[in-house]
Amino acid sequence: MSEPAKPIKVALLGCGTVGTEIVRLLTEQAPDLASRIGAPVELAGIAVRRLGKARPGVPAELLTTDAAELVTRPDVDVVVEVIGGIEPTRTWLIDALRAGKSVVTANKTLLAEHAGDLFAESDTFGGDLYFEAAVAGAIPLLRPLRESLAGDRITRVMGIVNGTTNFILSAMDETGAGYAETLEEAARLGYAEADPTADVDGYDAASKAAILASLSFHTRVTAGDVYREGISAVTPADVSAARALGRTIKLLAICERVDTPDGESVAVRVHPAMIPRTHPLAGVNGAFNAVFVEAEAAGQLMFYGQGAGGAPTASAVLGDLVAVARNLVVGGRGPRESAYADLPVRPIAQASTRYHISLDVADRAGVLAAVAAVFAEHEVSISAVRQEGRATDASLVIVTHSAPDAALRSTVDKIAGLPFVHEVVSVMRVEGEES
Amino acid sequence: MSEPAKPIKVALLGCGTVGTEIVRLLTEQAPDLASRIGAPVELAGIAVRRLGKARPGVPAELLTTDAAELVTRPDVDVVVEVIGGIEPTRTWLIDALRAGKSVVTANKTLLAEHAGDLFAESDTFGGDLYFEAAVAGAIPLLRPLRESLAGDRITRVMGIVNGTTNFILSAMDETGAGYAETLEEAARLGYAEADPTADVDGYDAASKAAILASLSFHTRVTAGDVYREGISAVTPADVSAARALGRTIKLLAICERVDTPDGESVAVRVHPAMIPRTHPLAGVNGAFNAVFVEAEAAGQLMFYGQGAGGAPTASAVLGDLVAVARNLVVGGRGPRESAYADLPVRPIAQASTRYHISLDVADRAGVLAAVAAVFAEHEVSISAVRQEGRATDASLVIVTHSAPDAALRSTVDKIAGLPFVHEVVSVMRVEGEES
Repeated sequence: MSEPAKPIKVALLGCGTVGTEIVRLLTEQAPDLASRIGAPVELAGIAVRRLGKARPGVPAELLTTDAAELVTRPDVDVVVEVIGGIEPTRTWLIDALRAGKSVVTANKTLLAEHAGDLFAESDTFGGDLYFEAAVAGAIPLLRPLRESLAGDRITRVMGIVNGTTNFILSAMDETGAGYAETLEEAARLGYAEADPTADVDGYDAASKAAILASLSFHTRVTAGDVYREGISAVTPADVSAARALGRTIKLLAICERVDTPDGESVAVRVHPAMIPRTHPLAGVNGAFNAVFVEAEAAGQLMFYGQGAGGAPTASAVLGDLVAVARNLVVGGRGPRESAYADLPVRPIAQASTRYHISLDVADRAGVLAAVAAVFAEHEVSISAVRQEGRATDASLVIVTHSAPDAALRSTVDKIAGLPFVHEVVSVMRVEGEES
Repeated sequence: MSEPAKPIKVALLGCGTVGTEIVRLLTEQAPDLASRIGAPVELAGIAVRRLGKARPGVPAELLTTDAAELVTRPDVDVVVEVIGGIEPTRTWLIDALRAGKSVVTANKTLLAEHAGDLFAESDTFGGDLYFEAAVAGAIPLLRPLRESLAGDRITRVMGIVNGTTNFILSAMDETGAGYAETLEEAARLGYAEADPTADVDGYDAASKAAILASLSFHTRVTAGDVYREGISAVTPADVSAARALGRTIKLLAICERVDTPDGESVAVRVHPAMIPRTHPLAGVNGAFNAVFVEAEAAGQLMFYGQGAGGAPTASAVLGDLVAVARNLVVGGRGPRESAYADLPVRPIAQASTRYHISLDVADRAGVLAAVAAVFAEHEVSISAVRQEGRATDASLVIVTHSAPDAALRSTVDKIAGLPFVHEVVSVMRVEGEES
């Protein structure tokens, strides 16, 4: 590896927070990277929207506004994309792959929609496709799923994959404040975007869940296949109900392999859920991410780290870049799409979940019996009940065993309509404990 | 990948707990593995010491006692080694690599001593060398270090990498019992071997630390370079001293990159240490392993899972086997040895650590001043002091700031000899908090 080798030329698409960090690391760590790859890495060009902006440390002569030209330039070996969004990014990456370039991308939205298209071009034209930074930032997660666990059978992935919502839920848990004011505070501190929809409504987490499920179950899962509930409906009542039971609320991305008499399927969903405070995910606070993976032989694994930010994301991108560059130097290939299993995706109604239901009911005889009868009628088994009389009414908390989500919803709907139920205080799914 | 491909033939060395699991998984998951690799995987032979032993599920016709012949057999593509130990295993693997075979091994002892030799043969003859299972069992850790973080600069690795000692320390913390009786209990429950030396004296952890340091710092570190203290000297007094300060004791493997005016070096050590009960590693109990990694851009990462056992280890081995087999099918190469940085390894005396010191002293004026003077004389700065008078004597607890280990030791030695110090109750390093 010591003889002088032809440099690997990189086109960078995007030069915001992450892109600037990539340029910095590529420059500062150039000798190390060259030693690890067996050839130097050089920037061939950087595509940006506006040339004039101040970008300290970024060589101005490399900037261009013509991304379409840059991605197919003959001297470019690898295209690194940190712009995001679907179009025109998708077209640029497809063009790059068709020109035989390898692609490293951090673009979860694109991967969650069009991974199949990108992999097809990668397969036909021979360029690699890596995207570690698309899920859980700096945490090495996709490579373990795609490669380390390739000899195992992954049964479940459950994680906190969105920092903004985790920051908000952690803060609500700490202060008891409401959702709206906590979101405002998060925006003020820079933890939420001006338009927080993608985060708080769970779109970001759903994209990541789709990517995780695809890799874990060797099945093509897109964002549209993912059941999605955000955190905007989480109330202080939910938070205190969770607290009263030694639980805390997290927005979870859950990917499950389901064995049924008709064969295997997968269920993928994003929603807030109560987890026990003793669960390792309960201690993941603020902007951190963590993902639990269960595999048949490996058992339980957890991966923890920073899920976003310029430097962490740049770390993941550069790890991929080293892999892609090494493949070019030694003549290898990264993993291709593995979608051979092609399992059906089950709708949420058929997914098996558990509910926590907190009710404000009239404090009189027969109430518990009537409520219990509704559960029985829907074949939902009750795991725990707590009733506490107050001055004029009573608090009734019920935690169910696992049941089809549809049955749980119907149960809640029917209970909400009972005459002696004054208020449905909190309804939330429960995860992270034996059902 | 759908046209029929030439099978990848595997020679398995060793058929104990891990080997049997590998055979089981190779059989049960054959269709999945073939889809992921692009070719079927077949066992060519299994080398064992004794043919007669009952091995349910293992095809008897594949057994041989002639490992030396098996590893160079022309039909063998990959040699998977789960025997352990240095010789004759080393010779067999060297012979296999010289015959152009790829090697997957779980052998930490061998890797920690002879990684350089094995990598040299891999480099010369073109076979891959993978060893994920050698450290932290099923936890995907080496691949993230070698590949995912290849674009980053790892500064520190700190982990619990030995299940036996973690089980014993967790139990001592829980019950307050002494080391000897807890070790007996661990042996009775199957968590400690009949001869527990390799575990309790830290040899196993030191081998793993050497492997982790080599990969993290691109420097050849062998087990002999690792400072090593086991857990046999940990007393109930240490445990309760830790508890009194909101800490718990863990056997830690610590690999650090040290920047000094003379340049960079690395420090690698294994010893028991007090960590705060709020530290994520504090919650890692029983036979589980967890490793913290700090990198310049990625920040803090944690990897958690089962560190040993047949199925978890087999999962890691099979992940490597899929990688090696894919490289054979698509014509790639795994990562080679990366030791270009070749940093010097610092002795423990120069490593920077913190001490917790608990003393039983005479309860009279001037004692604290005299003790503090000894610290000052050795240029060791004190972080916290707690003195409590008792009937006839006093308890004096001191936690230092970071200082060279040699200075800390000299301080303790001198204090132990002071006339009013009745007993040095507990001396232990402190990790996992800002110094």
